This record gives sequence, structure tokens and C-alpha cells, in this order.
Amino acid sequence: MNGQPLPRVIIVGGGFAGLAAAKALEGAPVAVTLLDRRNHHVFQPLLYQVATASLSPADICAPIRTILRKQRNCEVVLAEVVGVDVAEKKLTLDGRYVRYDWLVLAAGATHAYFGHDEWAAVAPGLKSIEDATELRRRILLAFETAEYEGSPEARRAALTFGIVGAGPTGVELAGAIKEIAGETIPEDYRHIDTRTTRVILFEAGARILAAYPPELSARAQRDLERMGVEVRLGSTVTNVTRQGIHIGEEFISVRNVFWAAGVEASPLGKSLGVPLDRSGRVVVAPDLTIPGHPEVFVTGDLAAATSSDTGLPVPGVAQGGIQMGRYAGRAIAGAVTGRSENRKPFVYRDKGSMAIIGKAKAVAVIGRFKTAGFLAWLIWGGIHIAFLIGFRNRLQVLLSWFWSWLLNARDARLITGEAGLEIQVPRSDDFTPQ
Amino acid sequence: MNGQPLPRVIIVGGGFAGLAAAKALEGAPVAVTLLDRRNHHVFQPLLYQVATASLSPADICAPIRTILRKQRNCEVVLAEVVGVDVAEKKLTLDGRYVRYDWLVLAAGATHAYFGHDEWAAVAPGLKSIEDATELRRRILLAFETAEYEGSPEARRAALTFGIVGAGPTGVELAGAIKEIAGETIPEDYRHIDTRTTRVILFEAGARILAAYPPELSARAQRDLERMGVEVRLGSTVTNVTRQGIHIGEEFISVRNVFWAAGVEASPLGKSLGVPLDRSGRVVVAPDLTIPGHPEVFVTGDLAAATSSDTGLPVPGVAQGGIQMGRYAGRAIAGAVTGRSENRKPFVYRDKGSMAIIGKAKAVAVIGRFKTAGFLAWLIWGGIHIAFLIGFRNRLQVLLSWFWSWLLNARDARLITGEAGLEIQVPRSDDFTPQ
Repeated sequence: MNGQPLPRVIIVGGGFAGLAAAKALEGAPVAVTLLDRRNHHVFQPLLYQVATASLSPADICAPIRTILRKQRNCEVVLAEVVGVDVAEKKLTLDGRYVRYDWLVLAAGATHAYFGHDEWAAVAPGLKSIEDATELRRRILLAFETAEYEGSPEARRAALTFGIVGAGPTGVELAGAIKEIAGETIPEDYRHIDTRTTRVILFEAGARILAAYPPELSARAQRDLERMGVEVRLGSTVTNVTRQGIHIGEEFISVRNVFWAAGVEASPLGKSLGVPLDRSGRVVVAPDLTIPGHPEVFVTGDLAAATSSDTGLPVPGVAQGGIQMGRYAGRAIAGAVTGRSENRKPFVYRDKGSMAIIGKAKAVAVIGRFKTAGFLAWLIWGGIHIAFLIGFRNRLQVLLSWFWSWLLNARDARLITGEAGLEIQVPRSDDFTPQ
Repeated sequence: MNGQPLPRVIIVGGGFAGLAAAKALEGAPVAVTLLDRRNHHVFQPLLYQVATASLSPADICAPIRTILRKQRNCEVVLAEVVGVDVAEKKLTLDGRYVRYDWLVLAAGATHAYFGHDEWAAVAPGLKSIEDATELRRRILLAFETAEYEGSPEARRAALTFGIVGAGPTGVELAGAIKEIAGETIPEDYRHIDTRTTRVILFEAGARILAAYPPELSARAQRDLERMGVEVRLGSTVTNVTRQGIHIGEEFISVRNVFWAAGVEASPLGKSLGVPLDRSGRVVVAPDLTIPGHPEVFVTGDLAAATSSDTGLPVPGVAQGGIQMGRYAGRAIAGAVTGRSENRKPFVYRDKGSMAIIGKAKAVAVIGRFKTAGFLAWLIWGGIHIAFLIGFRNRLQVLLSWFWSWLLNARDARLITGEAGLEIQVPRSDDFTPQ
């Protein structure tokens, strides 16, 4: 080249949005650096299957480095970004800093407790691989605890699961826990009938899967109820303790609570000094940049974006992140090559949405086409396999699914972690097995 | 039955020995309880493949409950045994106790630091699934650290691995790390050439794989050295710090040290009040019981047993555990049915041993048949697949191996854990990527 250093593009986050931005910059005359505090990309739509012991963590993850290894203008750095200085065009990383010419922020979101952070220890959420293995540990330990509880009340409490929030994650968790208890493990225990496990799905709104058409919400609820899941609508959780869940005056004894209710954007948004929405997301312009900084793009779950054709908010799903990230990457590539001075505003193309309820049960909306049941389940499986990164991951996941479907087996039933054995079994002083 | 309660057999440990004892009691008129502090059996011979990112934890584990689900006279309890009272015939579990009529202790062993427990934090060993994921984390982080080290010396140190102990585990780890660095990941990094990674195998004795015939030790050493592993014989480690390894007066700068040198039996052996050997193993009678207690069997890695035909010690390998456990189970079944008052002493049948060095490189001894190289590697693969528990695990592992072999891929390259990001990247104040 002419000795001029290439414009430096920094991408923060290796989720769907960050990866799409990096790939859209392939071949562009820029030096791309993708920063992430994890070495791996997580395929979040299948995270609940790790939490429910169907898949292993590595099945739905891929090292970010390896995904981008062929892209010679891109490097990957394992580092946590703690602040952005948009005036100086630099990022702070643990005392050090990195300068940029173009920035794509795609740092994502985590679960939020509406100001009740003390609920986090009692009611873990599901956003990372570590969250998933923690949920798996708690689900599996619940049955171990129940097996050796002395009193019927304690046994009943141990076998009761509460899930807060009936979006796709809550619905998927509820269905999967009921399937484990009802089909996978009953024969493994001698003192309890795991088929009596109660799974209660709490939803503050008037219906489950609120982002879906009402008839699919109704269908999904009917399917869940047929599987034995108790669906409680209009139930705003007012407190969560180790004993159970409070819904206003009412108290429900639940030993295992999982949180699938609120999300909160990465705190990185705050350091931009621009308006945020209620969930901490950055309110972006139609070209996904922030006011006064056409070189700073915010994408994915960190952005409160609207689609400029419909004026509707872009949903917090994989496709939203992918399309925003790709848009940002292309806008930068266009700008550095002088191809497009006037950017077209961002338009979100809804490619459909789907949620799984259980074996051969799902709901799907693709444009005007709505379906539920077996067909939706097949579509769901096909699309998720197709979008998984890594050919080997696809094969492994297909094999795991085939196995689960054939034998009701869930073979990733590992309780791991040094604090693995917190339960107190057996309870009686002189324990008499059998 | 006649109202008499069945004799109660307690088995402590769900490793190879404990499982074999439980299975040998199938159908016997006894009530069997297997206690383990983990919910899963680990196929230890493949643990190093989890540590080196070839396999996922769930590929080599199976829930103990599920393995024994069909055996109606057996139940499984998730509990940690802290002491044995042989006079009162009871086990202590965290303040509670359990009575037994027959006891099979199969609590295994862990790695030992010859009285230098302070080395454990610097030089982790490999005995559990948690150990394996910790090793994997350290191996993968080493390359991340090296990628952003400022000085050539620091980069070199980060890319140097030391493995202490050249038994099968040490040899397997050394070969696998060299393969990762040389074949799997070179293209993933931009600032370092991972093929320059140094792997040094320290062995106090005069040859590696001391349990094998000398010609196979020599062959394995030659194979390792051709792969680029440095083998240092006669090297007794006198100190291990975060900076490196001391061999007497000599100091070698090594950032990553893994321990594959000593093992120490479970502390449970001490509570029996009988003689132990140097490694804390219980010295057992020819029928694997302890003096004065024909109802207490000690098996697997917790036992210092000899084969009564040859007088040779039973080796601490899977077959040793399986054969001892099966012997104990059969002896109890025989005693309760009155079939055999005089037990035949235990005889260990050597079914061969094998260790893997790298792709298409292994050594194997089966009776008088000795082989090395490709054939040994095929035998090794076949036998390990055959002995894995769970048909699905076998398929998944076969698929993973095929993949690794075809593409040099190791797809379980996950750095997990909340303390995942301890490294300080980048080092320079104003970090300039590329």
C-alpha cells in the first residue's frame, strides 16, 4: 500500500451482531479487531438445551478465532472492554486503552431482575454457558435432593420448579424440565416418582409468547398444559426467596426458580453519554449510529433500533443482531472505499420466529405463514441446525437430537463444579436405604 | 421373602471398581447401595482428551444412576463418605451414618505432590472432570496470553509447557499439547507462531512409561521427540513456582506446569485402622479384605493388592479396578447364598496395557504381543471405544475422533469459568493491534 495505516475498526462482542459485522468487512481495506471477554461464540437459541442436559457446551459454541481464522484483515483479542471514550475515539480495557477509527459496539445484554439483584442467587437466568451449566446442576440436584427428603412436603417442594417469564426461553425451559422429569429419568430413582414433578410458568402479561400471534400463544399454552406444565398468567412476581415465589399476597412454595423475565443491556452503553431506553439499550439513529458520531455503530441486543420501513422496534433475536451487524460492517466498508456517502437507513427483514415447546411441539411464524405442532417442530430443528456454526457441531447436535428422540435419553446429565455437593442426603440420623 | 431384611451391601465409589462390584451383585439376595459424591462415572482413560479439547465432559461420563437403573436390588446415593467405623459396621456421611453388613470400599485416588501441597495451585493434576476443564482452560489461555505479550521472553515463557511425570497421562498430555500447538491452531493467531511451542516432559526415572517393556519406552520416547516434545529423564522436580520448575540447581522457565507424577489414595483408607502403603493405599489380604474383617473389601486404586499367582502388585489401571470390584461382588454374592465358604484368592489377569502418543502413534502390550505405531493406535482406539459406557457416547467419541483425524480439529476449545479472564491483554499502554 502507500504506507498509510489502514483505518482501524474495533468490534466489541463476538455474538451474532459482532460476528456479522466482522464478516461484512471481509476484503475491505481496514484492520479489524474483534474484542470479546470470552474465547467462544455461543449459539444462544440452543442454550436451554445445555441447561436441560440435551447438549454439551461445546456443541453450541465455537472459538471466535477459529470462525474468523481465514479473514486476514481481522484479528481476535480476548479482553474485556470497560468503557468507551467517543471524544477521544478510544476504548478502555482494564487500565489500558485501544484507539479506533470506526467502532461497532455489540456487547449484548444479560438477564435483569427489575432492581432486585438479590434474586439473582435464588433465581439464576440463562445467558451464558456458565449460566447453562449452573441451571443444569440445579435441575439435576433437585431430583437427588427429593430422593432423600424425609417428609412428603420437603419432597414435594424439591420437585417443584418455577420459571419466571413466558417468552421463548421460559417456555422452552418449562417444556424441557417436564420432559426430563416425565420421560427421561423416572426409572433412575427408587424413592420418588419424578413424573409428579410440578413445573409452574409465571407470566406477568395476559398470554405466553407475547411476541407471537395470539392464536399461537393459545396453542402453545394448550400444548404446555397437556404436558402438565401449570401456566399462570397475570402473575407479577413481587418477591423470590429460597422458600418460594410471592405473587402479591399469594405465596407459592417452590424450591427451584429460574429467571427468564427481563433483560438489561451491557453497561457499556452508559459510557457513550447518549440516551438509553428503560432496559439500558442505546437509542440509535436510523443508520444505527449515535448522535454526532457517524463512526460509532451500536448493534444487537445493546441497541434500541427501529426498522425504518415499519417504524417497529427490531426484536432481540439472532436475526436482529445478524442484520444490524451486517449493516454496520457494510456501512463502514462503503465509507472507507468512498462508495456510499449517504447511507440508506436500516431495515429489518423479519425472517420469522419460532419457539419449541416439547417433542414434536413448536410454534412458528414465517411472514404470513403460521404453524404449530409437528411441522413447526421440524422447521425449528432444520433452521437451528442450519444456522449453527461449524459442520461438526451440526452433526453432533443432530446425533444428540436423534438419540433423545429415539430413546428419551439426555446424556449430558453432569453435575459439575467444586460446590457440586451442597445437598444434605440422607436427612435421617440413621439413614436406611430401601 | 420370609420377612428377614436382606443383607445390606454398601459400595463406596462409582469408578471402575465400584461399578463392577455393583454389577457382580445383580440378582443376589442383597440390598445394594452405591454411594458417590459425584452423580457421574468418569471414563478416566480418556480424561486427557477432555483436557486437550478433543472431547466434551459428557462424552466420557455417564450418570451412575442411569448405568445401574435396571438393577432392581441396587440404589445410588449422591453423598460423600467421610469415615468408616469397622467395629460398629457403619459409615459416617457428614454427621449422619449408614450401617452395612458388607462393605466394598472403592473410593479411588487423587494426584499427590509428595508433601508439597503448595504446588497444587501452580501445577494442577488430572483426576476429575473439573481438573480436565481447568487444564483445558490453562492450555487455551496460554496461547491467548502469548498472542499479546510484549516481550519475546514473556511470549516464549507463555508458550512453554512443562509436564511432570512420564506415565501414560504425562505422555498423552505432552503429545496432545504439541499436536494442538503444531496442527490445530497455528492459523488462529496473528502475532505468534504456535508451532514454536515448547513441551518438556520431566521424568525422575530412567525411562518414560516405566510400566512398559524397555523397547516400547524407547520407541515412545523417539516418537515424542520426533513430534518435538523434549523428554528429560532423571529429572526430579525439587520446586515448582509460577515462574518455572527447579531440578536441583537448575531452573527452567515454564509458565504452564501440569502434574502427572504421583497419586495418593483416598483418605478414607486411614479410618480403617489397618496398615497402609506409602501412597496411602490399604494393604489387603489375598481375598481383598482387611485383617479381622472378612466383610470389608477394599478395591481399585484404594487397594494395595497383589495377584496371588504371580505375587506382583495389581496395577492402578481400569482393568485392575474392574477385576477387583467384580471379585468382591462375587465373593459377597457367594457368601450370602452360602455357595462358597472358602474364597479363592484374587488373581489379576493382565489384559494388556497401552498408551497413546499422538495421531497414529501408540504403544501396546497384550500378553507377549508388543506393538507400536499405527497398529497400536488402532487397537488403542478400538478398545477404548468398546469399554466406554453408553452407546451414544461411543458414537459421539468416534465422530469426534474421525473429525480430529480428518481435519486436525479440536472443537471443544472452550475457556469457561467465571475466573476465565485472568490474563492481562494487551500489555502495552496504548495497545496497537496488528
